[in-house]
Amino acid sequence: MATTRAAIINVTGYIGVDLARILLGHPDVELVSVTGRSQAGKRLSDVFPHLATSDLVIQPEMDQSVDVVFSAMPHKDSAEVCRPLVDGGLRVIDISADFRLKDRAEYEYWYGVEHPCSQLLDTAVYGLPELHREQLTGATLVANPGCYPTGAILALAPAMASGMVAGDIIIDSKSGVSGAGRSLTLTTHYAECNESVSAYAVGGHRHLPEIRQECRALNPEVGDIVFQPHLVPMTRGILSTCYARLSESWASRGEQAAVDAIEAYGEFYRDAPFTLVVETPPATKHVWGSNYCHVYVRVDVRGGRLLVISAIDNLVRGGAGEAVQNMNLMFGFPEECGLRALPVFP
Amino acid sequence: MATTRAAIINVTGYIGVDLARILLGHPDVELVSVTGRSQAGKRLSDVFPHLATSDLVIQPEMDQSVDVVFSAMPHKDSAEVCRPLVDGGLRVIDISADFRLKDRAEYEYWYGVEHPCSQLLDTAVYGLPELHREQLTGATLVANPGCYPTGAILALAPAMASGMVAGDIIIDSKSGVSGAGRSLTLTTHYAECNESVSAYAVGGHRHLPEIRQECRALNPEVGDIVFQPHLVPMTRGILSTCYARLSESWASRGEQAAVDAIEAYGEFYRDAPFTLVVETPPATKHVWGSNYCHVYVRVDVRGGRLLVISAIDNLVRGGAGEAVQNMNLMFGFPEECGLRALPVFP
Amino acid sequence: MATTRAAIINVTGYIGVDLARILLGHPDVELVSVTGRSQAGKRLSDVFPHLATSDLVIQPEMDQSVDVVFSAMPHKDSAEVCRPLVDGGLRVIDISADFRLKDRAEYEYWYGVEHPCSQLLDTAVYGLPELHREQLTGATLVANPGCYPTGAILALAPAMASGMVAGDIIIDSKSGVSGAGRSLTLTTHYAECNESVSAYAVGGHRHLPEIRQECRALNPEVGDIVFQPHLVPMTRGILSTCYARLSESWASRGEQAAVDAIEAYGEFYRDAPFTLVVETPPATKHVWGSNYCHVYVRVDVRGGRLLVISAIDNLVRGGAGEAVQNMNLMFGFPEECGLRALPVFP
Amino acid sequence: MATTRAAIINVTGYIGVDLARILLGHPDVELVSVTGRSQAGKRLSDVFPHLATSDLVIQPEMDQSVDVVFSAMPHKDSAEVCRPLVDGGLRVIDISADFRLKDRAEYEYWYGVEHPCSQLLDTAVYGLPELHREQLTGATLVANPGCYPTGAILALAPAMASGMVAGDIIIDSKSGVSGAGRSLTLTTHYAECNESVSAYAVGGHRHLPEIRQECRALNPEVGDIVFQPHLVPMTRGILSTCYARLSESWASRGEQAAVDAIEAYGEFYRDAPFTLVVETPPATKHVWGSNYCHVYVRVDVRGGRLLVISAIDNLVRGGAGEAVQNMNLMFGFPEECGLRALPVFP
Repeated sequence: MATTRAAIINVTGYIGVDLARILLGHPDVELVSVTGRSQAGKRLSDVFPHLATSDLVIQPEMDQSVDVVFSAMPHKDSAEVCRPLVDGGLRVIDISADFRLKDRAEYEYWYGVEHPCSQLLDTAVYGLPELHREQLTGATLVANPGCYPTGAILALAPAMASGMVAGDIIIDSKSGVSGAGRSLTLTTHYAECNESVSAYAVGGHRHLPEIRQECRALNPEVGDIVFQPHLVPMTRGILSTCYARLSESWASRGEQAAVDAIEAYGEFYRDAPFTLVVETPPATKHVWGSNYCHVYVRVDVRGGRLLVISAIDNLVRGGAGEAVQNMNLMFGFPEECGLRALPVFP
Repeated sequence: MATTRAAIINVTGYIGVDLARILLGHPDVELVSVTGRSQAGKRLSDVFPHLATSDLVIQPEMDQSVDVVFSAMPHKDSAEVCRPLVDGGLRVIDISADFRLKDRAEYEYWYGVEHPCSQLLDTAVYGLPELHREQLTGATLVANPGCYPTGAILALAPAMASGMVAGDIIIDSKSGVSGAGRSLTLTTHYAECNESVSAYAVGGHRHLPEIRQECRALNPEVGDIVFQPHLVPMTRGILSTCYARLSESWASRGEQAAVDAIEAYGEFYRDAPFTLVVETPPATKHVWGSNYCHVYVRVDVRGGRLLVISAIDNLVRGGAGEAVQNMNLMFGFPEECGLRALPVFP
Repeated sequence: MATTRAAIINVTGYIGVDLARILLGHPDVELVSVTGRSQAGKRLSDVFPHLATSDLVIQPEMDQSVDVVFSAMPHKDSAEVCRPLVDGGLRVIDISADFRLKDRAEYEYWYGVEHPCSQLLDTAVYGLPELHREQLTGATLVANPGCYPTGAILALAPAMASGMVAGDIIIDSKSGVSGAGRSLTLTTHYAECNESVSAYAVGGHRHLPEIRQECRALNPEVGDIVFQPHLVPMTRGILSTCYARLSESWASRGEQAAVDAIEAYGEFYRDAPFTLVVETPPATKHVWGSNYCHVYVRVDVRGGRLLVISAIDNLVRGGAGEAVQNMNLMFGFPEECGLRALPVFP
Repeated sequence: MATTRAAIINVTGYIGVDLARILLGHPDVELVSVTGRSQAGKRLSDVFPHLATSDLVIQPEMDQSVDVVFSAMPHKDSAEVCRPLVDGGLRVIDISADFRLKDRAEYEYWYGVEHPCSQLLDTAVYGLPELHREQLTGATLVANPGCYPTGAILALAPAMASGMVAGDIIIDSKSGVSGAGRSLTLTTHYAECNESVSAYAVGGHRHLPEIRQECRALNPEVGDIVFQPHLVPMTRGILSTCYARLSESWASRGEQAAVDAIEAYGEFYRDAPFTLVVETPPATKHVWGSNYCHVYVRVDVRGGRLLVISAIDNLVRGGAGEAVQNMNLMFGFPEECGLRALPVFP
């Protein structure tokens, strides 16, 4: 098989550069073009010394013919960049939020801009392989999920699909600081966020509608979803702690509910190479630097409650790795190709 | 006024040594005796170089006549140590859990031991000044609250007292590693907990009954309380994010509920020098090294929900500082005496 | 004694705000005015929530009559701000580098600007109390030392004064990230500096001439001084590891040199309340949040070498605390006034 | 080529488990046996959840026939374990210090034990591929270098080999906490070492003789080597800052010395796939999780001094990765096999 040629638009953010790292090690792909506005003309290795072995030069515009493009542009700009590429027949994976929400109005409410290219919303596939593997196979445009939604939806999907819960769902997520990106802010200034935990986006976070969309698709009767993100002093990782009440039918199973829940989760992820149902509460460090998601399920039979905790690396499984996983499906490569690196511990 | 003489039993844990730090700077108290088993005979400053200016020597047993004793012994041992001191007429502040739970059976269930001295349970006052200031004034035995209960109860008390919420309450707490104490474990080994977030005590944490006791005392109809602690890679601090549904009467107030909630919280803490109702979501760093608790309140009118977030320093407000605050009340000192150090930022 | 009224020019940097914290707790001083350009008009407590109990509003210009001014302006601007204040008879403590170097040419070489006010260089006293206590008593203009020079000079001064060493001196310093200030840079962006150590200013750092000036004043025959700073992933603290060869006269003492060195250090700092000669290698955590400097001295008799290690909190002893210590001397307050807070550990 | 079968003796330390991670991804090797005393009988994935995809069970003793054994036992025990394996014709890579020092007396002085098996000292090859690649090819017993020596020797070797420096050499190293291993100590207890930098082993560290041995082999006239390690609050990484005077011949080259030095380093490492001479001062984060070593060289022509800074990941290049690199050479695999993972940033 001839090598697939890939480009990254806007390589200078954290997901962009982690894409570069992963693609440079992918056996079936050659990364031939990386772009960036402010750093155009510099060698990738000068801007990112950890990629010292790469000879790539950051270009102002994509300068090579390629088979697949990863766009790590900000939302709105990204859709504008992607449209002509899709029209031109390229496979495109959009890391931004532009094609994630099927409901254009929802997008425009949360992002405060008119959708630049809503005609592609039907074409785009939401890039969570555990839910949409078939559609992703051969897809031309993939909307790569947000980091929080990846962790939260993987935690909740089996419960949704099986009618396990009813009523409100509370998702309390804790993210490492890299999730806030590479733009300079006081919030991500070392001395301000180190040795501190805080909640943010208390009024509502843009990742909520994405979580709601996918949960509702699995279970239209899902209750209110409350999603509260927190900033934690570490570089990578998202832990999502999810609280819900058992539905009546599940609550009536008594002790058996605890067994059934774990079995339902195991069954749901039987064919998912990267989502593992684990027997002890996960730590984000257990998946550090990898594409794995660890999911822990616990039923409190007496209290009639379900607790699910998921752990991911926000930049790999919640970003660059998931994008490569999606590419693998689009092109028919083995799903794990280029993503077999185990988590680095400690 | 003659100086009050104080002793710390078991100074070598984190709350014990932070008590030493605070008492060494207290204008009305002289710390005359510190004890410890494994380190007996060493100078306090050799074991804890930050106390280099102290001449105290760690003793195997309390070796001075004193007016007040702080016991930082482990539970069960602590009650045994405290009993003769109380009987002997000393004022005692017990940092352990032994006198916190009024229901002896509850204590024995959660701690798995017979209560060594339940006859003192009626004498002991739960040392949360915001709730029990009057009883603490002149008390002879104070049960110093746990670190999580301090943050959680301060977050919830006004809502309890005002009938603001109904149904389940979920408390998702994030603690720094010092909360796990100075005993060596893999969980608190640097390389294992750094750069990682995880949930623990998933089946139930000993601080839950303490939170429940105080919430029920304020509102006997409170629903189920779910309390889930997490370990976060920082040394000090607890952030507690609390989720609840508004009660019908509060939900019916519409937009006014948001205003009323903040006012109710402000009113509740009007005379509390260390609990501040803040207007933006707090970070644990805002209270680092101090006795302050910051509480943030937000009503989601449309969703009919209350969100409260509290931040404390787990070793000061959640331990040593609170103990000194209690001592101040017991002895009639100004409540803030020795505790006026502002948080250290950044 | 009537209260001394103080102002802080440019309170919004880390040393400025730590000055506010310390002065708000100083028993003989009232902080009456704080200024800042970008944040003018906001309450100090809105910009810095840890100062929630203060009512001060940040002003564009100093708006109160005061007795003492702390200028935390950037270099060059600071001298321009200080000149009229000094001329007007106020006591001024300049946190910037403008009055530290007695040699105007040296200043202009390292800072790349013409000195805005060199006529005050003779008036200014270098504010390291351990070296210049007498001159500081009653001084009108004090040049507060840099953070690295404070740690390095305190490590080396006794060796300089006693002719203990000869030849090159190497100072390898490790600083927490707050030393780089509150301005946003990639270097201090959490995700970039966390979990990483690096050297910086490899070609030469502006604090070198300051260290050299004070060392030479104590020993004009001092050899070359090599000063290499490093950035370490922690918020506060500087550890300086200093390497030198023993002078011939000291080397000839044999084993006695080790004893004599410790005695010489102890003697030198006998009257210094904040500089402690310690018997085990210090950690920056031993002085966290305090004005203490711990100095450890070790002679390798066989190798003929001296090793000295000092630890300070870069924002307190290396900045705000030292400035208050200098103020105390200028006004005849007890040197430790307002600075008695012990280090916070852990 | 048939797959090479490998075993790890004592997999439960940090280098042992990182060896498992790397070998599980090595294309030409099958990890068939892992041993451990305290955890024998447990699944590797239960003890180390990041290896959740492995089915290996920890055995009390090696239970499979293998081609190569990695011993991660403590020193002394390790030699005793290795001897029969070497005698039995297996290839052995010893991670401990037992076969590193060619001078048995030096070993016995620094480690305080009689050498258990000094007859193998001549057989053992010091496993730094950049210095001993030819000997390593086909070696039967390899002494894997210590973490500090790897960084320090790679920083100094070209200077040694070219006669670039004369006189004392000072190596000031900063290590992440994982270097102290997985045994529980107060020094590595999170709350004690977080937010703190300190020097340790001030009287002399066991890695010094190893550095000296290799430097002297390259340049018998090398001066005194001073090696001072420091503990830094991060999980992985060692930065070594090396200070030396230029030799007369090099100093006499004037400005050309700066150019020649960089060229000499580049030449020395021309064929070393993992040691890169970089143009800006390295950060440990630039090599995180990888087998790369970044070396930065700077000549201060006026001062007549050389500064070299190296950065490695202490567990990979300073341990497990280097061991696999050595195995590759022993077995004739490509040197980079199984080690191509790029550093993970940020």
